[in-house]
Amino acid sequence: MKTDAGTRPGKAAVRRSGRRQGETSTRDDILAAATGAFAEHGFDRATIRDIAARASVDPALVIHYFGSKEALFAQVLELPVRPREVFTRAAAADPRDMGSTVTRGFLEAWEPPEQRLRLTAILRSATTNETAMRILRDLLVREVFAPMTQLLGVADGRLRATLVGSQFVGLALLRYVGGIEPLASASVDELVAAIGPTVQRYLTGDVGSGPTRTAG
Amino acid sequence: MKTDAGTRPGKAAVRRSGRRQGETSTRDDILAAATGAFAEHGFDRATIRDIAARASVDPALVIHYFGSKEALFAQVLELPVRPREVFTRAAAADPRDMGSTVTRGFLEAWEPPEQRLRLTAILRSATTNETAMRILRDLLVREVFAPMTQLLGVADGRLRATLVGSQFVGLALLRYVGGIEPLASASVDELVAAIGPTVQRYLTGDVGSGPTRTAG
Repeated sequence: MKTDAGTRPGKAAVRRSGRRQGETSTRDDILAAATGAFAEHGFDRATIRDIAARASVDPALVIHYFGSKEALFAQVLELPVRPREVFTRAAAADPRDMGSTVTRGFLEAWEPPEQRLRLTAILRSATTNETAMRILRDLLVREVFAPMTQLLGVADGRLRATLVGSQFVGLALLRYVGGIEPLASASVDELVAAIGPTVQRYLTGDVGSGPTRTAG
Repeated sequence: MKTDAGTRPGKAAVRRSGRRQGETSTRDDILAAATGAFAEHGFDRATIRDIAARASVDPALVIHYFGSKEALFAQVLELPVRPREVFTRAAAADPRDMGSTVTRGFLEAWEPPEQRLRLTAILRSATTNETAMRILRDLLVREVFAPMTQLLGVADGRLRATLVGSQFVGLALLRYVGGIEPLASASVDELVAAIGPTVQRYLTGDVGSGPTRTAG
């Protein structure tokens, strides 16, 4: 297994350096603890009590900062790499490089171990809990599929965007969560070469939209 | 949501018609109950006690028939559609249709509601439990990746096979578990048109295997 999901992450793994200590640090500690709990157990089995214990704080403080487990999960989903930036970069690049630019952007966002843990937390939670899946679906639509559709500016943009999503989610599941070889130890460059053309076709090629297809 | 995972399946949904009643039927009832429990809760949270209650049998009978939760999960994984048959069909078809034949085979295997529930059970369990993921990984290697690699007869067959796997797993997750539109309500034909060429390239095209790639 390549993923760190089975181990409890040290707080230092998620706390950003150079930050002022105090409130921000406690909040980050709780967020790191929640990421670890969601990654290890999924949304259903991760409890506020467990998250508080991992962060060495009182459960009331978790509620004070985040309000609920749902809100905490939504925070874990907030990506430090903004998909919109990747799409903006892809739109500015040579149209023929759009697929590889987006693929590289996805992989680079998920390569750091902290991000890998976060991805595991998201996938574990969303596959096992309806609430977590709804939160993920809303975020995907708002932050990924809508900007991608907008970038494409075509009627079937939503189909194209979700096709890209299906390839990326499956790759993430086999590479980061499943540790399935040779995908798990392939380099980013190798994966961009293999998967970039798929994404390029989904974004710009013929995806078989017939007369039955309505605007995304 | 398109999946039935949230509802308890009636026994009739899985019991095959025309079968002799008795042992076979009880075994099938337990298997159907286990599929429902794994689909709803994932491997970790599904218990022998819960599975027995769903099948209206004594927990001891579950152990009598299957031995352990791990063995039950391995049984749920046994697909009634054999991937080898799909690959044999693909090998016999026009080489240009290989991708669409395999894609259609995958989708048709998962379209029936019973199979959809099974897929949900597998994905929910494997993403949240190391044991379930190991069982799934072993099965994928033995029943899917090895025959696919053999069919292809090329050095990088394992990379190609796992690339196909990544696309299929992601599609299944978004379509069947996530209910993400328009993938969730697209027809099999539409998806074969959209994804078939991806699978065709993964199986037979340039996937960027450079000098660093070793035989799968």
